Amino acid sequence: MTDLPFSKIPYGGDWNPEQWARPVWDEDVQLFEQAGIDLLSVNIFAWTALQPTEDTYDFARLDEVLALLESRGMRACLGTSTAAVPAWLATRYPDVMRVDEQGRRHRFGGRHNACPNSPAYRRLAPALAGQLARRYAGRDVAALWHVSNEYGGACYCPNCEAAFRVWLRGRYGTLDALNHAWNAAFWSQTITAWDEIVAPNELSVQGAERVTAVQGLTLDYQRFMSDALLGAYRLEKGAIRAEIPDAVITTNLMGTYRPLDYRAWAPHLDVIAWDSYPSPQDSPAAIALRHTLMRSLKGGQPFMLMEQTPSQQNWQAFNALKRPGVMRLQSWQAVAHGADAVMFFQMRRSVGACEKFHGAVMEHHGRTDTRVFREVAQLGAELRALGNVTLGARTPARVAVWFDWPAWWAVENSSGPTAALHYLREVTALFEAFHAQGYAVDLVGPDSDLGGYGVLASTLLYLLPAGAAQNLTAFVEGGGVFLAGLMTGVADESDRVFPGGPPGPLRDLLGVWVEEVDALPPGETNEVILQGGLSGTFGCTLLFEQLRVETAEVLGTYGRDFYAGAPVLTRRRAGRGQAWKLGSSLAPAGLRVLTRALCDEAGIEPLVPELPDGVEVTRRDGPGGQFLFLLNHAPDERRVEVPGLSGTDLLSGEAMGATVLLPPYGVRVVRGGAGA
Amino acid sequence: MTDLPFSKIPYGGDWNPEQWARPVWDEDVQLFEQAGIDLLSVNIFAWTALQPTEDTYDFARLDEVLALLESRGMRACLGTSTAAVPAWLATRYPDVMRVDEQGRRHRFGGRHNACPNSPAYRRLAPALAGQLARRYAGRDVAALWHVSNEYGGACYCPNCEAAFRVWLRGRYGTLDALNHAWNAAFWSQTITAWDEIVAPNELSVQGAERVTAVQGLTLDYQRFMSDALLGAYRLEKGAIRAEIPDAVITTNLMGTYRPLDYRAWAPHLDVIAWDSYPSPQDSPAAIALRHTLMRSLKGGQPFMLMEQTPSQQNWQAFNALKRPGVMRLQSWQAVAHGADAVMFFQMRRSVGACEKFHGAVMEHHGRTDTRVFREVAQLGAELRALGNVTLGARTPARVAVWFDWPAWWAVENSSGPTAALHYLREVTALFEAFHAQGYAVDLVGPDSDLGGYGVLASTLLYLLPAGAAQNLTAFVEGGGVFLAGLMTGVADESDRVFPGGPPGPLRDLLGVWVEEVDALPPGETNEVILQGGLSGTFGCTLLFEQLRVETAEVLGTYGRDFYAGAPVLTRRRAGRGQAWKLGSSLAPAGLRVLTRALCDEAGIEPLVPELPDGVEVTRRDGPGGQFLFLLNHAPDERRVEVPGLSGTDLLSGEAMGATVLLPPYGVRVVRGGAGA
Amino acid sequence: MTDLPFSKIPYGGDWNPEQWARPVWDEDVQLFEQAGIDLLSVNIFAWTALQPTEDTYDFARLDEVLALLESRGMRACLGTSTAAVPAWLATRYPDVMRVDEQGRRHRFGGRHNACPNSPAYRRLAPALAGQLARRYAGRDVAALWHVSNEYGGACYCPNCEAAFRVWLRGRYGTLDALNHAWNAAFWSQTITAWDEIVAPNELSVQGAERVTAVQGLTLDYQRFMSDALLGAYRLEKGAIRAEIPDAVITTNLMGTYRPLDYRAWAPHLDVIAWDSYPSPQDSPAAIALRHTLMRSLKGGQPFMLMEQTPSQQNWQAFNALKRPGVMRLQSWQAVAHGADAVMFFQMRRSVGACEKFHGAVMEHHGRTDTRVFREVAQLGAELRALGNVTLGARTPARVAVWFDWPAWWAVENSSGPTAALHYLREVTALFEAFHAQGYAVDLVGPDSDLGGYGVLASTLLYLLPAGAAQNLTAFVEGGGVFLAGLMTGVADESDRVFPGGPPGPLRDLLGVWVEEVDALPPGETNEVILQGGLSGTFGCTLLFEQLRVETAEVLGTYGRDFYAGAPVLTRRRAGRGQAWKLGSSLAPAGLRVLTRALCDEAGIEPLVPELPDGVEVTRRDGPGGQFLFLLNHAPDERRVEVPGLSGTDLLSGEAMGATVLLPPYGVRVVRGGAGA
Repeated sequence: MTDLPFSKIPYGGDWNPEQWARPVWDEDVQLFEQAGIDLLSVNIFAWTALQPTEDTYDFARLDEVLALLESRGMRACLGTSTAAVPAWLATRYPDVMRVDEQGRRHRFGGRHNACPNSPAYRRLAPALAGQLARRYAGRDVAALWHVSNEYGGACYCPNCEAAFRVWLRGRYGTLDALNHAWNAAFWSQTITAWDEIVAPNELSVQGAERVTAVQGLTLDYQRFMSDALLGAYRLEKGAIRAEIPDAVITTNLMGTYRPLDYRAWAPHLDVIAWDSYPSPQDSPAAIALRHTLMRSLKGGQPFMLMEQTPSQQNWQAFNALKRPGVMRLQSWQAVAHGADAVMFFQMRRSVGACEKFHGAVMEHHGRTDTRVFREVAQLGAELRALGNVTLGARTPARVAVWFDWPAWWAVENSSGPTAALHYLREVTALFEAFHAQGYAVDLVGPDSDLGGYGVLASTLLYLLPAGAAQNLTAFVEGGGVFLAGLMTGVADESDRVFPGGPPGPLRDLLGVWVEEVDALPPGETNEVILQGGLSGTFGCTLLFEQLRVETAEVLGTYGRDFYAGAPVLTRRRAGRGQAWKLGSSLAPAGLRVLTRALCDEAGIEPLVPELPDGVEVTRRDGPGGQFLFLLNHAPDERRVEVPGLSGTDLLSGEAMGATVLLPPYGVRVVRGGAGA
Repeated sequence: MTDLPFSKIPYGGDWNPEQWARPVWDEDVQLFEQAGIDLLSVNIFAWTALQPTEDTYDFARLDEVLALLESRGMRACLGTSTAAVPAWLATRYPDVMRVDEQGRRHRFGGRHNACPNSPAYRRLAPALAGQLARRYAGRDVAALWHVSNEYGGACYCPNCEAAFRVWLRGRYGTLDALNHAWNAAFWSQTITAWDEIVAPNELSVQGAERVTAVQGLTLDYQRFMSDALLGAYRLEKGAIRAEIPDAVITTNLMGTYRPLDYRAWAPHLDVIAWDSYPSPQDSPAAIALRHTLMRSLKGGQPFMLMEQTPSQQNWQAFNALKRPGVMRLQSWQAVAHGADAVMFFQMRRSVGACEKFHGAVMEHHGRTDTRVFREVAQLGAELRALGNVTLGARTPARVAVWFDWPAWWAVENSSGPTAALHYLREVTALFEAFHAQGYAVDLVGPDSDLGGYGVLASTLLYLLPAGAAQNLTAFVEGGGVFLAGLMTGVADESDRVFPGGPPGPLRDLLGVWVEEVDALPPGETNEVILQGGLSGTFGCTLLFEQLRVETAEVLGTYGRDFYAGAPVLTRRRAGRGQAWKLGSSLAPAGLRVLTRALCDEAGIEPLVPELPDGVEVTRRDGPGGQFLFLLNHAPDERRVEVPGLSGTDLLSGEAMGATVLLPPYGVRVVRGGAGA
Repeated sequence: MTDLPFSKIPYGGDWNPEQWARPVWDEDVQLFEQAGIDLLSVNIFAWTALQPTEDTYDFARLDEVLALLESRGMRACLGTSTAAVPAWLATRYPDVMRVDEQGRRHRFGGRHNACPNSPAYRRLAPALAGQLARRYAGRDVAALWHVSNEYGGACYCPNCEAAFRVWLRGRYGTLDALNHAWNAAFWSQTITAWDEIVAPNELSVQGAERVTAVQGLTLDYQRFMSDALLGAYRLEKGAIRAEIPDAVITTNLMGTYRPLDYRAWAPHLDVIAWDSYPSPQDSPAAIALRHTLMRSLKGGQPFMLMEQTPSQQNWQAFNALKRPGVMRLQSWQAVAHGADAVMFFQMRRSVGACEKFHGAVMEHHGRTDTRVFREVAQLGAELRALGNVTLGARTPARVAVWFDWPAWWAVENSSGPTAALHYLREVTALFEAFHAQGYAVDLVGPDSDLGGYGVLASTLLYLLPAGAAQNLTAFVEGGGVFLAGLMTGVADESDRVFPGGPPGPLRDLLGVWVEEVDALPPGETNEVILQGGLSGTFGCTLLFEQLRVETAEVLGTYGRDFYAGAPVLTRRRAGRGQAWKLGSSLAPAGLRVLTRALCDEAGIEPLVPELPDGVEVTRRDGPGGQFLFLLNHAPDERRVEVPGLSGTDLLSGEAMGATVLLPPYGVRVVRGGAGA
């Protein structure tokens, strides 16, 4: 990692002075000081202002903004402003606008709508980034570079189609290889010339949301489009790097954002930065999973919480306020999971257009004698008081959960076996089982180093890239405990089903094969009767694989239906480890029993022996010490036993012993001690 | 008002002889006489018949139709037939067809689909209207002119886009002013040349139904499109007026129809005429609101009920029959609220195409020995017996409720704070609280004269045009009682939020400001605990504003959640009046208590002291006397006490005293007496 | 009928060797033998392989496939491969791709997407079929010809529009006739030149799914498009016939598939073949209705079950496995209703693309020691053991239920009276009432010979083509018992309502007319009180016709609402028969009482006196004897009394007497005996 150039957790967020008159700026920096804010994301959406015509740049206002920050000792996360193209650009180069899933060329308006393969965009966006870099090179105020904003979406225009064909030629070399990968003989979809390939939208193979006529084509387009947007990022990054060799360059990601394979992006980001906008319905575990995923992208390197709302959002259906203490709690939750920065969207609410109802540090009323501002300032003070002790600290974990974008795409591209299959829901349920019991967890994928883990748990490990089976086998034989869940080992990287059917290359390791897979409507359930050392009977839903055992032992059978008694949970010991297979979607209580059993087998202890409902625990270790984070997501007080704990809560300064009291929405950051 | 040229309430409706052979016409006029029908809307959809080619007109059949009516002493509401363009016109001038929200140019078929900025339409429609006017000028049978039909919808074609740019130039003068109004610096949406402006449809800024990337642009397009359709109307009106200087010219409106700002239309209509198609689920108050809105468009001038179904509709999901007596009841309800005409769609059911299942005076069976025909004829007899006594009578009201199209558009264009926010639902609930207690109510807007009102109640008074705050302040200081509800005073006419936040320029008047607004899903509620002279605790939902009191007194606080105890209802005395502010959506029972309190403060009495459930009361005063209308919407008998009433029920001829008995679905029209 | 060239029920299904390497073929034929499979549908989707460029054909692989089958004594149902166009064809001739309902021209990808009026398609598809026929003429292995696959969908391109105008000219001769038929004077939709006619999609008259502005136009386009697809089929058929005068040629239909009027197709199919994919929610009666419909297309001639899944589908929302025994049960159900072939989709699961999760005889695991394979092989053995005895046997029925595609289209094209009106649901409920009581039923339409029937029951007999009223009257006067249900006799073939309203030309026969039709939301019901020899009170829903009796007797009246006491069920005796009329949608229990009454009047007995719940009974009579099929769709044992039965169950070899025991999902095929 490029070290982040900060001596405390930077605190701040998006600031858009281009929307305001100069006197407001002065008021704003006043407020920043009051609230302990020291890092501002600026210049996120100002392309037209910076470049009012193709041949004119005007940096006067940005100069002034940066000078103002400099004068107060604040610093900038400096945007390149390329996430919304100027009206003149869209008018002059209509092909900068995307063609959508329905095949419609869009026109000017909104943001995040530039085609990543548009020649004009690929010329003008990096040119602007380069101009900015040249102008502000060597200025300490520019702490890091924020390229574009929340990359996303897709385009299906002729430029993209042409680029896709080139991309495919690079991937497959020959049409024979491509036709084989796509199983194009099915429905006579065979491609006989590269130019016959069309982008997979509603005018070609795409039907209702999740159905495509050619899974391989759609999956490749998903990869291609993720790469194409990454390509646009890299052009800008390159333009900055050319001017400032040691610039810290990133863009803001969006957590579990399906369209982009962030694992492929991570090597090109100097630091992971992401925007956390939980819905009021999200569980703490669902939020934790996103932090964990973002942290895991660069092997555990601390990340930046680049955006969160101080109060409420505007684009949810019902934009509830964060209850008192919740913004603080969620901020510390980010830090607990590895964040080394806490940032908001936004400093001041815009007076008009799309986000005028989005929360901000400064609301339309412009007052500081308010709950929200008080909470922001209180957190600012806490962060200042904390100083640098946690910076760079890692979050050690011996449990890993599998998370893989191409598998996500592929299972949801498929027609069948059930429309109720949602990748994220299944993975979150598995993650939550560990999380709720206080285990430290990482998220890993096909290219991850599994070295340090004792348990690797997965579900919907549907795609097995070349080499993955060997890695998993080596993991198990080396002593790891591996759980394969639903629909494991179904297909290769092109979504071609493995000969012999699931679990494909993992059949030897798991010692089972799958005879049939039943799919029942949401209300219809079965039950898993545990045995072989495990006990209990738990509900299961969604899919019901009937396992045929070859070399495994049976640890659970179905309780009902014509496959009552058939195996649904098995274990095979291999080398020094174990390979488990689960054939249904187990209810949460069952998943907890199962995940605890896996950890017990691997000799992994949770961070605290008994985690009360609603409480979250993590640990960070770093040069500044060892920090136990205890977070209470419940609206009531909670008491946690941490045997042997002896340390200080860095937020309250209180000494902490083996019994920790957590107020409603309360947080403890305890340095030192045996518990951690 | 142009006086309507009738000596009794005209009775009739749409008659389409062009769909029938001549012998049917003769049968029809026979039926008209039998049913007391004397006014027929003709020539509504006959453009192709009247003008079979661009260069040929053929009025022979229409001559014959009018002569037939004339011969029976009946009269015509004479259509211009321009609401459905001929096939030849659409074929020859494809740009007469609209481009829709999805950017698709439509082709021939259906109605209400001409682009109001199409050069061909703007030439040929007024030409036809002018031809008709020239031909039938001076003919008494042409009682009034019915231009086109139910204007509505929108177009996004290049002609509209060009006209929009001209319209914007007229509104803003400069791009700087436009960019400021739209807060275009947000997301770098700044316009640098007029030609860069694009119509706001799904290809540009419009997303899902209610979300746009640029609220100011969308709001202006809504204004522009309402104006553009009005422009098309005015072209036809001008063509008629040029031939017949004293013609009574109008078109049929549609009540609470969102796309058109009928307040801007009203000055161009000689009389308000509208089509009432309540769904079976609509409450009597919801129907009453529409009548009241239509009546209020021209300051209380009597209006025409231009269409209603005698029996059932065909375009609802489930087209229930109007129960026996309900058509009569709803007809008298229209008169009770100010109608001076009662008309149906339609005289005879068409035998094919879209509305073949829409009710008519004469059904497909062609029989008169039926319930529906009997009810139609009975009402005809009643109207004839009533004569001219109620014509021109006004409906005096001292309570006004705020209703404003641009506010409607703007709150529903917004992203946030809640997708459950429906302008009409909130305004209807407020209206209903007065209505259910027997208060006479008007609907007013920014340009209304508030002179005669004692109470002005509002909710979602979201947009405050220039001058509105002064007017409201003057109203209060002059002795009025003003209620500001949810989201009051948020933004200016361009949906730019006021500096200082809501209630913006009304902050001094109301003596409060809004610190936070919580938005919870439909099932989650809070409660309002009344105090300060009021009492009771009532549920509230939707949005929860936390008021910060400056100079107001607190009359209600929240009962739950972290803002329990925070003010939600306040009052500030100012001058001789009072300014109340309510910060949530109060349950109906609470709204009744609140509205009664407002009226008590203003010294306003309801028309009867205690209105039984399901009964509606209105009063009309005119040269023919004072008329108390009592309408029973319940399927059971009701008894109403009207202290001091002494008069005659004009329908039954019965003498009425202080106790009025209303049969199921029964109506009393009592002339004279103290009660009224 | 062309006799099918088989000496036992052929057994097999779709086999796609083009997706597999040669060694897999050999394994496959091995499996076929093991499972008793002897007929393979081949070459269904292989156009690109057969014709890799416009000028090149390559039949080498197909030669090999057929030779392999030949070598094992198996035979082929030989596809023409034209249901998915090659990529090169779509690229070279873009107008081969359809324009959809939204007006969008599609591009390459998927299947069933060729425009039937595309010149390139109409040239190249028959050319391929002709090449295949020439090559394989005289080869016994080619048992029958399978043209294209599952024709369906619609196109709205300019080529179709032009063809539609020609089609309309053929139907109407003059525009006056067309305008009259469409009642085009309504909304001034009059056509003044043929070129003004546009295809009815969303860009012209079509709104939300079921609403069109011009019913006559839409109905004609539905007829035209069914004809156009039939035309494409006939071109291929002609090309084959030219080479092989005695070829058995067909295509696979889809049961109750709305877009195609299979009655118009039937004369062009040498044998009816269809694909049965019941959803897990379908009742046995719903499946039976489809078999019955398919059988009735060619007057009872045995049909082929061309596709079914051996295990599960992939395109349902939730793809449940067929429970053990259910595939067998449903196979015998097909035979019970007249199938002389039992075929699957598919032999081996594809490894990729759209249907990779669709069940197959051979799953991805490639194992035969599985439940599914065992069941397939068991059925194969049963079919082999059965031999030829049932081949050609008919299913005599004296009850007919009305089923008419144009009526289906027309009632669902209409706007009103209720969005809850679904043709299939109403007809299925009526069919089910007979079916559940063990009556043998046929489905008939306007052109059917009613000669052999004692009861003809109908609902939504909405369209009455010329002559239909006379036929129905003759049926009744000749002794038949006729039931007219909801919305009978409303409109003529162009959906023009009959003068005098419903029941139109049937008014004299039925002796009633319909005064009003109420339409209430799904939850709101009424009741029918039976009388006049019938007894009981039963719920009714959906629509509530109030009948006015002229010459009929009243057998049922409404129990509630303002039309309580009004007639809802009537009977008129005419000649030697009876004409009944029912005015609402009667609950199942009521329908059973009613249908039994009809049968009693006609002297028709059910196949068994008392049919237990879940049991189905049919009879086939043929040269091989009389066969009583008893099928138990319940998961529990059932006992059926069949007085006088004495025969042998051909599946178990057991002797059967008057009491037949049926295991769960069990089947008996009893030859001989009095019961049948």
